[in-house]
Amino acid sequence: MSNMLKGACILGQSGGPTSVINASAAGVFLQALKEENITAVYGAAHGIKGMLEEDFYDIGMEDTNELELLKTTPSSTIGSVRYKLKDYTVDDTDYRRLLEVFKKYNIRYFFYNGGNDSMDTCNKISKFFQQNDYDCICMGIPKTIDNDLAGTDHCPGYASAAKYVATSLMELYQDATVYDVPMITVVEVMGRNAGWLTAAAQLAVYKGQGPDLIYLPEVTFDLKKCINKVRQIMAYKNKIIICISEGVVDENGKYLPEAFGELAKDSFGHAQLGGTAQVLAKELANEFGCKTRAIEFSLLQRCAQHLASKVDVEEAFNAGVEAVKAATKGITDMMIAFVRGVDTYGKYYCKYELTPLDICANTEKKVPLEWIKPDGTGLTLDFVNYALPLIQGDMKAPLEDGLPRFARLAKIKAKKL
Amino acid sequence: MSNMLKGACILGQSGGPTSVINASAAGVFLQALKEENITAVYGAAHGIKGMLEEDFYDIGMEDTNELELLKTTPSSTIGSVRYKLKDYTVDDTDYRRLLEVFKKYNIRYFFYNGGNDSMDTCNKISKFFQQNDYDCICMGIPKTIDNDLAGTDHCPGYASAAKYVATSLMELYQDATVYDVPMITVVEVMGRNAGWLTAAAQLAVYKGQGPDLIYLPEVTFDLKKCINKVRQIMAYKNKIIICISEGVVDENGKYLPEAFGELAKDSFGHAQLGGTAQVLAKELANEFGCKTRAIEFSLLQRCAQHLASKVDVEEAFNAGVEAVKAATKGITDMMIAFVRGVDTYGKYYCKYELTPLDICANTEKKVPLEWIKPDGTGLTLDFVNYALPLIQGDMKAPLEDGLPRFARLAKIKAKKL
Repeated sequence: MSNMLKGACILGQSGGPTSVINASAAGVFLQALKEENITAVYGAAHGIKGMLEEDFYDIGMEDTNELELLKTTPSSTIGSVRYKLKDYTVDDTDYRRLLEVFKKYNIRYFFYNGGNDSMDTCNKISKFFQQNDYDCICMGIPKTIDNDLAGTDHCPGYASAAKYVATSLMELYQDATVYDVPMITVVEVMGRNAGWLTAAAQLAVYKGQGPDLIYLPEVTFDLKKCINKVRQIMAYKNKIIICISEGVVDENGKYLPEAFGELAKDSFGHAQLGGTAQVLAKELANEFGCKTRAIEFSLLQRCAQHLASKVDVEEAFNAGVEAVKAATKGITDMMIAFVRGVDTYGKYYCKYELTPLDICANTEKKVPLEWIKPDGTGLTLDFVNYALPLIQGDMKAPLEDGLPRFARLAKIKAKKL
Repeated sequence: MSNMLKGACILGQSGGPTSVINASAAGVFLQALKEENITAVYGAAHGIKGMLEEDFYDIGMEDTNELELLKTTPSSTIGSVRYKLKDYTVDDTDYRRLLEVFKKYNIRYFFYNGGNDSMDTCNKISKFFQQNDYDCICMGIPKTIDNDLAGTDHCPGYASAAKYVATSLMELYQDATVYDVPMITVVEVMGRNAGWLTAAAQLAVYKGQGPDLIYLPEVTFDLKKCINKVRQIMAYKNKIIICISEGVVDENGKYLPEAFGELAKDSFGHAQLGGTAQVLAKELANEFGCKTRAIEFSLLQRCAQHLASKVDVEEAFNAGVEAVKAATKGITDMMIAFVRGVDTYGKYYCKYELTPLDICANTEKKVPLEWIKPDGTGLTLDFVNYALPLIQGDMKAPLEDGLPRFARLAKIKAKKL
């Protein structure tokens, strides 16, 4: 493929938002606007959906100051989507449509920012374009609070969510221990299959103000063992804080709301998951008869930009910049990957490298079992050493009226051709 | 009463904690340690309970740097309590015990920091001591995220919780609008009888990133009207955010979980309230058949020190300082009150005055009805002008390892006499 490829670029974002996914968008946009070979910069409205529907924002029309403010604006301003492309050997309708759109707008640089599913999407599109002899650089940019992407040391978005979880737990520790009465607090953290985010609770433990028990989806949950642990702890102090992943399953592979609770159903009869903390708190209330409280961090853990890690914001931004730089060198079919470096002073730094999309697509990286304590209720110091460098520094939006001043994009749609 | 009263002082804290109740403790402790007429400085463990049980911390043994760090440590480090004293004309057992303890330790300065109930406690003790000719200065220091104390423009703790509510709603707005699918988000805010904290959602609306509907306990909730409003809004945009107070009641005076849900019961069969957002989200899911999400800010809203307002932290600290200064001038039977001032540049400032405890005890100040929009779903600019000056500036704990460094008191118990 020629490294003189000239044409438009497009960025799509997909999956659940994070505090720093806009920072990656800022990196792509600001770098792409500087590149000679990039003739137009588009942001797809709601990821692949916007590409299929020719629904793009013309980023060249935006004020650079507002694009800079994207660095400290949570969630995805151009919009995200949950849309899984079919295998093109089964049904290539969407792919042919994409090819048509890309040709029409002469899009030669395709950046897709997301987690496992998004890297799969990016990979499939890359391969389809190759097979159809359409010259288009395809580059993945990682993103997920779940931190479960293979081929990278960690993922943009994880550290800020981890900082939120650890900080909030330290604050809850101060609050939940204020009365002189027995009390059980159960806190639920996101992460359906990998326990990286729940593991961040160990950082609060490391600071002496964390939960007593931490349950990850990597370890099968046993209610009886949990009750015994709680009994042991309540015997010497009358307060306990438990941090549990929403993705924890019992020995039958069932999520706790399914195993112990009447699983909430929506109006169509579909099971609505969540409520892991609630059902565990209820079980413990029945067992111990004391006050219990269930707390869900819910969406707050992924959008609390006011607690973003400076390291995370900068790395997310750089991931976008590096993706464009590599692309304009003619590199394709890759995802930007983070490699951990340690300088001669023992200080952490991040190297930006490339991993083939094939490796990242659809592979889940879980918390190593050797980092989980033998009884399955906490993490070792290896995890603390892994996570601590990532949550350093603050980088929140500037204040206006005492409240965050987020980016206000003009969001001018690209003219349909 | 002599202004030459010499003796020990004691601080008790009571009710739900806030992000800045420790800041008031810091104000009392640091000022009291400077006062010649104060011979010892005690912090009661768990409020009135510690006083009845002679369970005090000797604050003179603490490192001043750690006492300074209390300013940015959430919740109450000496411990709080929920304990309502009986009327002493009915049963004076506790009062006689307090008199005994105060005499034994020569406690001549009594500071009580809390909300309505706590001011009632402080008032009753003050009156009992007077009737029993025990010379003791009794001074109330306001505290409540509910902002419902009479006799003061606002209460320490409110502004930081309000800043948390407004900031988190702005972040949720970014997150909840990220997908191109219909979505109803219901957010529940604390406040059983007064809607001050839920009203803070209007600050996010003022910044253009707030909820579409705000429901306060001051206005009777009508589900049919709510559904109609939601239908109107969903007709022109397919996303809606609703902010609702946990204290909202229907036309029969019933809280929503009682009115619409099966009220959760604990293992003793006691009704457990909460879940207002959950039951409303469920009703709306049944009505509209789209994705709904219920979010409770739960304890986070009262302990999220990392979002504390600088104005609030400083005022809470000053309230403690001013209480000690007034007390050592011989003033008693009062609560520190905030009076709003506006300087010649139109800038807000706070004057510290005194209000008789009789006025503050057990009176609830609600949101003025004229500040609530006629249809009961939002606040007027009067409220924004009231609240905005209070949430200005940040003042969070210093970072250590990227996480908050809260005060670590030695917590040395005073020797029992």
